[in-house]
Order: sequence, then structure tokens, then C-alpha cells
Amino acid sequence: MLNLNFHPSGQHFLQIPGPSPVPDRLLRALSYPTIDHRGPEFGALGRQVLGGIKAIFKTNSPVVIYGSSGTGAWEAALVNTLNAGDTVLMYETGHFATLWKEMAESLGLKPEFIGLSSYESWRHGVQAEMIAERLRADKAHDIKAVCVVHNETSTGVTSDIVAVRRAIDSVNHPALLFVDTISSLASADYRHDEWGVDVTVSGSQKGLMLPPGIGFNAISDRALAAHKKATLPRSYWDWTPILKANETGYWPYTPNTNLLYALSEALDMIAGEGLDNVFARHKRLGEACRVAVQAWGFEIQCLDPKVYSPVLTGVVMPEGVDADHVRKVIYQKFNLSLGAGLGKAKGKMFRIGHLGNCNELTLMAALSGCEMGLRIAGVPVNAKGARAAMDHLESSASQFGLSL
Amino acid sequence: MLNLNFHPSGQHFLQIPGPSPVPDRLLRALSYPTIDHRGPEFGALGRQVLGGIKAIFKTNSPVVIYGSSGTGAWEAALVNTLNAGDTVLMYETGHFATLWKEMAESLGLKPEFIGLSSYESWRHGVQAEMIAERLRADKAHDIKAVCVVHNETSTGVTSDIVAVRRAIDSVNHPALLFVDTISSLASADYRHDEWGVDVTVSGSQKGLMLPPGIGFNAISDRALAAHKKATLPRSYWDWTPILKANETGYWPYTPNTNLLYALSEALDMIAGEGLDNVFARHKRLGEACRVAVQAWGFEIQCLDPKVYSPVLTGVVMPEGVDADHVRKVIYQKFNLSLGAGLGKAKGKMFRIGHLGNCNELTLMAALSGCEMGLRIAGVPVNAKGARAAMDHLESSASQFGLSL
Amino acid sequence: MLNLNFHPSGQHFLQIPGPSPVPDRLLRALSYPTIDHRGPEFGALGRQVLGGIKAIFKTNSPVVIYGSSGTGAWEAALVNTLNAGDTVLMYETGHFATLWKEMAESLGLKPEFIGLSSYESWRHGVQAEMIAERLRADKAHDIKAVCVVHNETSTGVTSDIVAVRRAIDSVNHPALLFVDTISSLASADYRHDEWGVDVTVSGSQKGLMLPPGIGFNAISDRALAAHKKATLPRSYWDWTPILKANETGYWPYTPNTNLLYALSEALDMIAGEGLDNVFARHKRLGEACRVAVQAWGFEIQCLDPKVYSPVLTGVVMPEGVDADHVRKVIYQKFNLSLGAGLGKAKGKMFRIGHLGNCNELTLMAALSGCEMGLRIAGVPVNAKGARAAMDHLESSASQFGLSL
Amino acid sequence: MLNLNFHPSGQHFLQIPGPSPVPDRLLRALSYPTIDHRGPEFGALGRQVLGGIKAIFKTNSPVVIYGSSGTGAWEAALVNTLNAGDTVLMYETGHFATLWKEMAESLGLKPEFIGLSSYESWRHGVQAEMIAERLRADKAHDIKAVCVVHNETSTGVTSDIVAVRRAIDSVNHPALLFVDTISSLASADYRHDEWGVDVTVSGSQKGLMLPPGIGFNAISDRALAAHKKATLPRSYWDWTPILKANETGYWPYTPNTNLLYALSEALDMIAGEGLDNVFARHKRLGEACRVAVQAWGFEIQCLDPKVYSPVLTGVVMPEGVDADHVRKVIYQKFNLSLGAGLGKAKGKMFRIGHLGNCNELTLMAALSGCEMGLRIAGVPVNAKGARAAMDHLESSASQFGLSL
Repeated sequence: MLNLNFHPSGQHFLQIPGPSPVPDRLLRALSYPTIDHRGPEFGALGRQVLGGIKAIFKTNSPVVIYGSSGTGAWEAALVNTLNAGDTVLMYETGHFATLWKEMAESLGLKPEFIGLSSYESWRHGVQAEMIAERLRADKAHDIKAVCVVHNETSTGVTSDIVAVRRAIDSVNHPALLFVDTISSLASADYRHDEWGVDVTVSGSQKGLMLPPGIGFNAISDRALAAHKKATLPRSYWDWTPILKANETGYWPYTPNTNLLYALSEALDMIAGEGLDNVFARHKRLGEACRVAVQAWGFEIQCLDPKVYSPVLTGVVMPEGVDADHVRKVIYQKFNLSLGAGLGKAKGKMFRIGHLGNCNELTLMAALSGCEMGLRIAGVPVNAKGARAAMDHLESSASQFGLSL
Repeated sequence: MLNLNFHPSGQHFLQIPGPSPVPDRLLRALSYPTIDHRGPEFGALGRQVLGGIKAIFKTNSPVVIYGSSGTGAWEAALVNTLNAGDTVLMYETGHFATLWKEMAESLGLKPEFIGLSSYESWRHGVQAEMIAERLRADKAHDIKAVCVVHNETSTGVTSDIVAVRRAIDSVNHPALLFVDTISSLASADYRHDEWGVDVTVSGSQKGLMLPPGIGFNAISDRALAAHKKATLPRSYWDWTPILKANETGYWPYTPNTNLLYALSEALDMIAGEGLDNVFARHKRLGEACRVAVQAWGFEIQCLDPKVYSPVLTGVVMPEGVDADHVRKVIYQKFNLSLGAGLGKAKGKMFRIGHLGNCNELTLMAALSGCEMGLRIAGVPVNAKGARAAMDHLESSASQFGLSL
Repeated sequence: MLNLNFHPSGQHFLQIPGPSPVPDRLLRALSYPTIDHRGPEFGALGRQVLGGIKAIFKTNSPVVIYGSSGTGAWEAALVNTLNAGDTVLMYETGHFATLWKEMAESLGLKPEFIGLSSYESWRHGVQAEMIAERLRADKAHDIKAVCVVHNETSTGVTSDIVAVRRAIDSVNHPALLFVDTISSLASADYRHDEWGVDVTVSGSQKGLMLPPGIGFNAISDRALAAHKKATLPRSYWDWTPILKANETGYWPYTPNTNLLYALSEALDMIAGEGLDNVFARHKRLGEACRVAVQAWGFEIQCLDPKVYSPVLTGVVMPEGVDADHVRKVIYQKFNLSLGAGLGKAKGKMFRIGHLGNCNELTLMAALSGCEMGLRIAGVPVNAKGARAAMDHLESSASQFGLSL
Repeated sequence: MLNLNFHPSGQHFLQIPGPSPVPDRLLRALSYPTIDHRGPEFGALGRQVLGGIKAIFKTNSPVVIYGSSGTGAWEAALVNTLNAGDTVLMYETGHFATLWKEMAESLGLKPEFIGLSSYESWRHGVQAEMIAERLRADKAHDIKAVCVVHNETSTGVTSDIVAVRRAIDSVNHPALLFVDTISSLASADYRHDEWGVDVTVSGSQKGLMLPPGIGFNAISDRALAAHKKATLPRSYWDWTPILKANETGYWPYTPNTNLLYALSEALDMIAGEGLDNVFARHKRLGEACRVAVQAWGFEIQCLDPKVYSPVLTGVVMPEGVDADHVRKVIYQKFNLSLGAGLGKAKGKMFRIGHLGNCNELTLMAALSGCEMGLRIAGVPVNAKGARAAMDHLESSASQFGLSL
């Protein structure tokens, strides 16, 4: 195998907003020998993960597990429920919302892409009233689904899903609600059933702390009903044979067995910590990160404090600074990987991930690496960010940690 | 994690025709920490596996690597090259050929499914002259593609791809040739370029010895040309953005990083043994297995010795014996997993895999487990199969093994 | 790292009488990151393994765990309890008994080495009456300890420890009883307390299924009393500081943390199977192995059926056959490692291990490899051994395996 | 297996001065299946590690590898070269020097323990002139060996071995020179041959980055000559049979195979980075750590800047502060393990390890955890230590990192 850490020694810090660092327990589970996907052990494994994953989505409905990236799960949501030429209302929160919209086009749907004017839309969450307004105008109910991203990974902005649901209901529109939680699941509070979501799309390599390779669809009864009538061509993504095989813990085709081992272990880890504790930990680390960014004197990509992401923070560079150059210096000097600005944000900002298996000291390592790298790169920066983050972690420490 | 070997102790023998046993080297590579899929190490990894995999397909054309099962790669071949309503000529060699045909229907294509009468088709390879005949009759060139399975995993029958190509060419038909090598790649001789295949479909969990989770499409220039005009909706499977990103070693969406680690290691392993040596090893183990089956007094599922599979052997049970009961006894008593009869073969036969990381003694373990389990299950059997296999392995030993 | 399997592909079969094949669960546990050996997690681990190991020795007394081979644990037994020049009665059962005797000499003790005449002693167990006789003659009680090997790894002969204890008691001799269970612990029935053993010596790489690197001393009250007065120089092996540190789960110097992880997992595995079930499994596999050897037409090294080893079988080659050449052929052709004849048995026999994580099919793989290799090497052999072993496994199958 | 990280999530930071964090590559190598320690693969492994380890000690003489802790290697140095009652001159640099002296007493030697008055000796390196003076007075050459610790792990003070050698030579004293490099090998510059050391003692779990379980003796010709005449009882530690077996790559008893896998990989890693680069990295991280400690307003345990340790830093707490309470708070709140004050330093100081696989950001994580924990524990501290360390790392960054 190739050497996969060009730095000759020392730990690599993976602080991109996913894939997040895979815990040792999961890596060990991942490498257990592959078994017969038609045998009784596999059935027990299948039933365990299919049952356990529901608690993560907070749903009693089925969750379909795909061997795919999260992108595949986007496609699955669309092709299982819609018909060629259907209009879909999609909201531009950033790069990933844009990619989902482009996918809808490729699949023969007609996405309407709304949002704030231009780049403002990449710095705020979904404006639910804009959705209400558009649906109100759609007297003919041409719009078959509303698609929003819960945590826009390209910007570090979350959106208020409850408000989106309320917007749809307020105008009595029958559109389905599809939510992308690829980078928020198991990191930010999310409730598929309570919030009335029809298809929740997610992936393995973020809050679940697995390597990439698994995509998810959590499916409401309304989505299932739409599925029965939907005619977009589909086979690999088709819910029907999967749901049938899942009844006994199996899949219609060869599933990604080794990733399911890791998923089983991840469910154990999350249950051990407690999902609410997971959310509280992410919230606090996000706060500490933003305190650092502000102390450095930089803008946070998200302009609305109500929807700051607990998963990642977008750090806006001053005019004239190439954010990708800064990232490269940090990587080369400190073996720290950060997320690039994507699409409209390219070169303008970088992204610090603080999700999954992250804790206080991995965050401090990341912030220290940023602070040093910014200075080495010659960016005007107030060298007080790491210290400010520590202030926040100290002041909030009493509710965290062990009491042995 | 769940206990994944219900037997309280001792090694499990996985002798199904895939997933095949994953070698320790690959399991260790698989569990290396996940890295940034946009960073420079990943690019080096990507370029290495994208380059190295070509030698396995014996092609100079691009090979697309999907995060999916082999089933996904089937779908990719179809949706990238065809249009809604296109006629596809598919040949029934067994269960997997049948599933591929059903997939074509689901995707809005019109498969014509030809073959020998009924179950005979499950015991012989593709009859190339039937393909020639059908294409000759297709004066309008309505048939856009011919789809065959190189090694039918459900039966242990291979097909002569050179003859199929010749059949197409003999009538000057422009149909594309798609070949499923999911269970033959890196186990049986296969030559994408030399044999004139347009799309070769494959997967990771057989001859490549990886866990499931990767699908492949090797793509000829003619297939790429068809792709440019093909209009079936596609996004996840779309070759274009993948081929573009692959140019520098990356993927358009998050790839299955940890499986790519294992693929890199598998390419090293295969290069170390030598691909021709891999084929010779499979051939010999297949011969030994068939000698055992015949000594037991059973029929081999494949009735044509010219196309016996080097990957697996279908063992036909005498009338009145439930092959699945036999498999269950063998599993319960000897911790050995065998393949079930599928589809039309259900209950009539079982399948012994001898592929991937298999060697003489794993085969002997499997044959011993079968021989004992058959007797415990009360099946009339001549208890000389294991010994007969040993005879074959002894007599062929001089060309195998080490000379230290 | 070096390539550690010269055979380019396929599973290696490690059928030596130790190290035995390490189960995947233990290999995964072994590779968990090393922790602080003074921290609270370590204390919990230490207390768990120190408590759990007692059940394996069937003792309520302390068991000391060393970072060492079993050889080190031999030395520990001697230097903790004896004084320079002490006479020790040792019984020659084979190569390892001989090495222990040589160690006693090196340490300044005076071993008396008794046994049957010459090579006969290597084919029978301890003759307890010889021990009784010698002790009866020792009116002055010069003999301070009696040392016997429970399962002589070089021959596949066990010894009756209850009879040895009875022999000592029958003459009211105060000598301590030291028993080497390096290759029998957790494979053959053994009872430190009930059998009145003073120091039981053992190691990790046999029945416990760990890699080598841990040695054990189970210590009776009488041994502890002797320890308090014993004056042989000692430091690393000294029980006193270890027992004191062990009270809270720690060690006086840095312990072999990662092997303790694996030990913790091994204790879980053995508890899961049940120690009596472990013994029954070994007994049956030993029977099947001997049936094969006899069917081949060879002598078993052990001439007394009452003390056949459930751990390994010594296979005596016909006059004129070099057993080491046979082993080499088997290794080169079939990737199977067997034990060599050692000391007086060198070249005369080879040893088949059937211990630890062994099951029916790993044994059949080993027997098949032997049968084929013997024939390839030109040894006159009746090619019915593997089949005979299968007969035994079939006839005894009803009490083994799963009932799902 | 027990849960080995009481913190429910997030990476543990192991910043004790050994065991140091084991790199992923080594953990993977460690868990490769155990092989036959008498087979040809093992011989190749043995020859590789026995050859490769010499470069680490900078010696052409043999290096013996024990299955033991470093403590065992201390004992090996003494029992292989000395006779009962021999006088040994040992220098008190701290806790580990004291333990070695106690071991010498236990083994029946007569250590003379010299040093500065009381606690001063724990804050300075070896005063070579005191050794010269004592040896000068030893006209009868009663002193057979001089024992010093190169890097005193309990204090973070190194000693000038060249000066010690010169001191011995300056008075033409024939005493052997034994040096403990347990915590300095492969972290601080060390030259067994050039510096005229007779036995260098070391261990696996520090600069070599392995788990604990291997001890080393590098042996000069003079030490070998003394060995031939030395009469202390020995068996497990005896160089003679080990050196003989090592000639072909084997051991006289079962070696710690899996740790040797990891050693093989560690030698590859160190060769890849370059030993001088390893030293430079440790030196820089040590400097950054001390800058932080001084900025906090604390004393460094080592009072002589010429012998600051590149491996660890002893941080002296203000009067009245319980250093162990501080450590506990840091562990509980930030999942960071630090070294305790030992022996005479108990409760007075704590130790930060910065050795082995450490890099800039693991150090910054550790310093951040200390800085926060000190404040939470109410210790008067200037919260500028982490920032000061960053200043140092920034200013020295140009010579480190990648130039891609």
C-alpha cells in the first residue's frame, strides 16, 4: 500500500467537515473478516443496525442503508418518489444544495432553485417564508417536493427544519419534504418523525464517524405512498426490494458488510455517550471554534448566529488573501487538513471541522495549527484565537468531562 | 459490535463464491485511518489504483470505480450508454443473468432474454451462435447492446466471450458488448481490450479479495461514444464527471477511501503473485474440486467441460435431497459457509467457492467439511471425494509451491 | 514490514504446538492503542485480567503475569522459592523437561533428573512411583522441589499430576510441586488448587491463543511461604513487588499492555465457550488426529494411550525417513507449518498441533496437507488417514456444533 | 475486552514520557497473525530486526532483544557481566537511577550510589568529575561497572555520556560503562560505539514507538569478555545462547513475534524520516514545551539548560500545589495523560512527554490541555504558555514540514 501520510512522522489531524476522524474502535470493527451476507450471523448484524439506526434519525419508520456515498442517497430520495419532469423546490444554501439541484436536473426533474440574492444565500440558513410564499403561489400543486440541506457543509450554516415544515403546512401544500442531513446526523439535533420530514438523506462519514461508503434514506409513510406511484427508472436505489429483504436483516444484493460492522460499533459508541451528550459536545466545540475565529479578527461565514453550525466553522479570509494558500501552508507545516472553500466560496474561506470523534484537545490542536499557519502565511491575524477558545472551554468545563 | 461468528471458537471457512475470504494484508490496509479525499495523499492513492486496476482488466481504456456493489456497476453500464426503450439482447446463463435482465426492465429498457430451453440454459455457457442468429435477424439494428455473464456465479459456468464477440462481428452488427465479470475478474483469464468488450462490469469482493463495496466499469472508446449520446437519466453513475475527476486521482463525490486502501494492497498482492499464476492456481483448485464432486458420485451443475468455472463448482444433489438442508448441517457442524442454489436451482444444488485467497488446504478444509456434512445429513455419497481431490493436488504439485 | 508469508497467496496454516493461531478477535484487541500503565483505565484492565485468569488455572491464589516467554516463568518459579545449591527433583519427559533442568543448573541449583531409560522416557508420562521412591529415600529432605511437565510439548505426552501429588504425599515429603502447563493450560483439564500444585508455570501462546510474550506463575500459600525465605538473587521475577502492585491492578514496572488487551479478550472468548467445552473440543480433535496417524500406518510418539495429549500429536516416521525433510515438503507445497522433532527426537518425528483456536476443518486441512506431503516426499503411507479422521469427527458430531 | 477509554468519545492524548503513542502503522503491523518462530519467514524477520536495530544504537556490535520491559534489560546488563558481591558505581539522577540501584542490591551486588546532595541530584545531570574522583580513589579496582542513565525519565534531565566515558578513561579505570537509554533511544542523539559504552540498556515503548514488551542490550567486546567470566546465576537473560541463535535470525526460546513485526515497521519508519531528523524534531518540540512552561511562570525540573531533555519536560508546581491533583483534573476534563512526579518528586511536579510519534499539534494539544487544566485547578498560572510555544514553533517552522 502507498504511504498515506506524506509527513514522515506524527499524527495527522483530519479536521475537515468530513470524513471525520474514524475512532480506533470503529477501525478495528471495520477490519473483522468479511462473512457470508446470506448467513445467520449476517442476519443478526443486519437486524441490529437496521433497528439501531432508527434512534439516530429519531424515527420509527424504516431507514434504508445503501452502499454508496451520501450523493447516492440524494439520488435515491429523488428517484424513489418522483416522476420525470416533476417540479422540485430546492433552496440554495451553498455548494452542496447546488450539487443536489444539478443532480435533480440530470435525473430529468425540474428544480426551482430559490434563495437570497447571490452570495447572501451562502451565509444564511433557509428562509422558510420564501418557501411558504412560493408554495402559496403553486395553486396547481406542481411542486412535488421541497428539498433543503440541514447543515450546509460548504458554509457551516444550519437551517430550521421545523420552520420549513411549518411553511409547507401553513399553505396546505402536499409537497414532500426532503432534508439532507449528511453532515448533521448524529452531530446536531435532528428529528425525522417529530419534524415531519418525508425523506431524510444522510451518510456515514460525518457524525457517525465511519469511513465513507454508506448512504441512508429515512422514509415517512407519505414518502412510501409516493414511491408506490413514482415512475422514474430505478433499480439499485429502489426501496421496495431493499425494504422487503431488510425485514429479515438482509439486502437484495451484496451489502457493504465491513462498513456495517463499523456501523454496529458506532451505534454502540453513540448509545454509550448518549445522543444528547453528543449534541452538547458538538455545540460547545463549535462555540469554542467561533470564539477563536472572532478573536483572530475574521468573519464567520455564517452571518446569522441563530443557525451557526455545531459541525464546522467557515473562516472568511481578509480581502486579498488566498484561503487555499493558507490551507496549504497549514497542511505542509502542521500535518493538519482543513476544508477548502467550495464553489462560490472558493479561495475566500476555509472550513474547520469539529465533528464526530472530536474533543477539546483535537480542536485545540486544529486551532493552534490554524493560528500558527496563518501567521507563517503572513495573514494579518490577532494571535489570540487559541487562547480565546481555551477561555470558553475552561468556563464551560464544569458540565463536561469525567467525575471519577 | 455483535459477535460475528456464532461458533464459539475456531476459524470460520468462507467458501461461498464471494465475498471471498479477505486476506490479512487487505484487512489491515482497510483499517488505516481515513484521510482527506481532497488532499495530496489521496490523489497519490487515486492515481495508483486507477492506473493499477487497468492491468487486471487488461485494458488501456479507463476503468471507473464506484462506491457500490457489483449490482450498481451493472446499472452504470446500462444507464451510461442506452436510451429509454432500447432493446438489449441478454443471455440467460443463470440467476445473475436473470437479475441483470430484470434490472434492465426496471430501468425502462427492453431486454430480450434468450438461451437454451429452460433449465438447460443454467447448465451451459452462452451459445454464441444463438446470439449471431438473433442479431442477423435484427436488420434494423434495434438491438443496442448484447449482455452476457462471463462467469455465472449461480451455476459455476463460464462463457466464451471471444465467441460472443465473433458472433456479433460475423453479422456486422453495431451492438455494444457488455460483459459481467463480477465473479471472474482476477480469477479467470479475461481481456477487455483484446476481446473487444465495450463495458466490463465487475466488483471487489471476489477475485480482488476485498470486502464488498466497490463496483467497476471498464469502458471502450465505442462505449464512451455511445455514452455521449445516451439519455437515460443518471447522476451517481455518470461516467463523465468521474472520468474528469479521475484525471488527477480524485472523485466528484466522496469515494470509499478505506476500500481503496485495500484495493491498493490487493493490486500489490496480485502483482506479487503474477496474474497468470493467479489464474493457474484457480484452474488447479477448480479441477481438484470437480474431481471430488465426481468421486462423491454427484453431477456438476455445468454440463460442458469446456466452460467449467475456475471460481466455483455447483454440486447437484440427488433427487429428493434438499441442498439447503445439507448446507445448514455443514454450517452448523463445521463452521463452513457454502453458496445456496439460487432461483431455478434453489434447493437442487449448492456451490463451493474456490476463489480469491483460496489455496490447497482451504479447499481441502471445504471438501472435508462437505464430505462429512453430506454423510451426517444422510445423503448417499461415496466418501472418496476429499481423497480424490488430494490425488489431483499431489499429481499437479510439482508446478506449484515454493522452491526455497 | 517484511512480507511474512513467503507463499504469495492463500492462508497459512499454523499447526505447530504453539504459538497457536491467534483468533481475529484477539488480534484486533492486541492492536488497540497503548494506554498509560499508571492511569485508571489500566487499573480496570489489570484487575480484570488478574481476576479472570484465576478461573483458567482453577485457583483462588494469586497468579503473577510476566512480560516474558514461558521460559521466563520457569525461571521465576525457581528463583522465587529456592536457595543456591538446593536439590530439585526433575522428571525427563522430553525436550522441554530437559531445558528446564538445564535452566536449574544455570541458576545454581542441583537438579536430579530421573526418568525411564533413555528414549523410553520421551514416549511415556511421568512415572509417579519413581518420584515416590526417590523422595522416600531422601530422609534428610534435601529435595526442595519436584518439577514435572504437564504436557510435554516436544512429544505429545501428558502426565498425571494427581498421581505425582499423591506420590509426594505418600512419603510425607515437604518438597514443593512445580508444574509446567505452558502447552496444556486452557486446552487440557488442569486444577492448580485441587491438585495441590505449588507453582504452576504457563505461557500465553498456546491454549490462551495469544501471541507469545506473557508468562504466568500461579502460586500456592506454601510457595509464598518458601518465597519469603528464598535467597536466590532475583529482581525482575520477584513476586513480592508484583503481588503488591497487583492488589490495585498495576505492575511495578511497565507491563506488556497490548498483550493484556488480548488476554482480556481471550478470557471473554473462553468464558463464552465454557472451559469444559474447550477441553472437550481439544480431546475430540486429538482423537481424530491420532486416528489419522494410525490409519497412515505410523506410530504415535506417545506409547501410553492413557496420557495421549489433547494438544498435539507426535507422528513417528518410519526408519530411514527424515522427518524434517517431510516437514519442509509440506511447508513448501501446502503452506502448512508443523512442529519439528526436538532434541532426542530430532529428525525422527514431527508434531501436529491441534490446540487453541483449532476446529474440525483446520485439523482436516492440516491432516490433508500431511497426507499429501508424505506422498509427495515418497514416504510409504496408507492414504487413508484424512478419511479415518473424518470418520471419527462424523461419529462424534452429534455432541458438537450448533443447534440453531 | 474492557472499554479502555473512560471518556466516552474523542481521542485520548497520551503525553506521558512513555509508553509513547504507537503509530497506526505499527499497530497494524503488531496485529499481523503470529507465525512459526522456527520457520523461514521468522528467520528473515529476525535477521532484519537484528541487523536494523544496530543503526539505532549506532553500533556494529550485537544487540540482544528480550521479551521483557526495560527493567528486564537492566537486569540482563548486570547478571551477564558481574559476579556476586561486585561493587558497582551508580549515579543518582532520579527515580529510575534509584530503582536500578535497588535492583543491583536485590541481585547481590554492592552498588555505591553517588550524586549531588539530596534533591539537587534530581535536577542536574551526572557530574562526571564525581565519577572520576571516586574511580581515582578505587586503586584496587573494586568497582566493576559504572551505571548511568542517559535520559532520566523521572525528571527530564539528560547526562553527558561522553564526559562519563572520559572520566573513566582519565583515571585509567577498567570499570565497564553501562548506560540506560530506555527513554532516550531514537529520540536523543546516542552513539554506543563512538562513546565507548559497554552495555546500552533500552526498551521498546519510548522513542521506538512500540508498545512495551521488548528490552535491549547493546554489548561491546569488553562486555562480552566480562560476560565469559561472570558468575551471577542467569538463564533467561543469558547472552550466550541468544547470540548464538541470533546468528541465523532465531531465539533460543519463543520470542515476542508480534512485537518484532512492529519493530520491523518502526525501523522502516525511522529510516524513512532519518534518525537525525528524528533527533531534530524532538529537540524542537522540547524547546517549545519549555518555552511554554517558562511562560506559565513555572520552574523546569532540570536546572541545567545544557542537559534539558528532548524527550520530556518536568514541570514544577508552585509550593502548596499538589501536582497529582492537577494531573487528575487535566485527565478528567481533557482526556490527556501526563506523567506523575515519582519518588522524591512525588506531588511536586508533573511530566509532559514529547517523544516518539509526537509532532507540533500533539504537543499543542498537550500544552493547551495543561494550560486549561491548571486554570481550572486554580493554580496561579500565566495563561500565555501555549501561545509562547506557538511563537517558537512558528519561528522555527522554516526548517520543518514538507515542501510539496
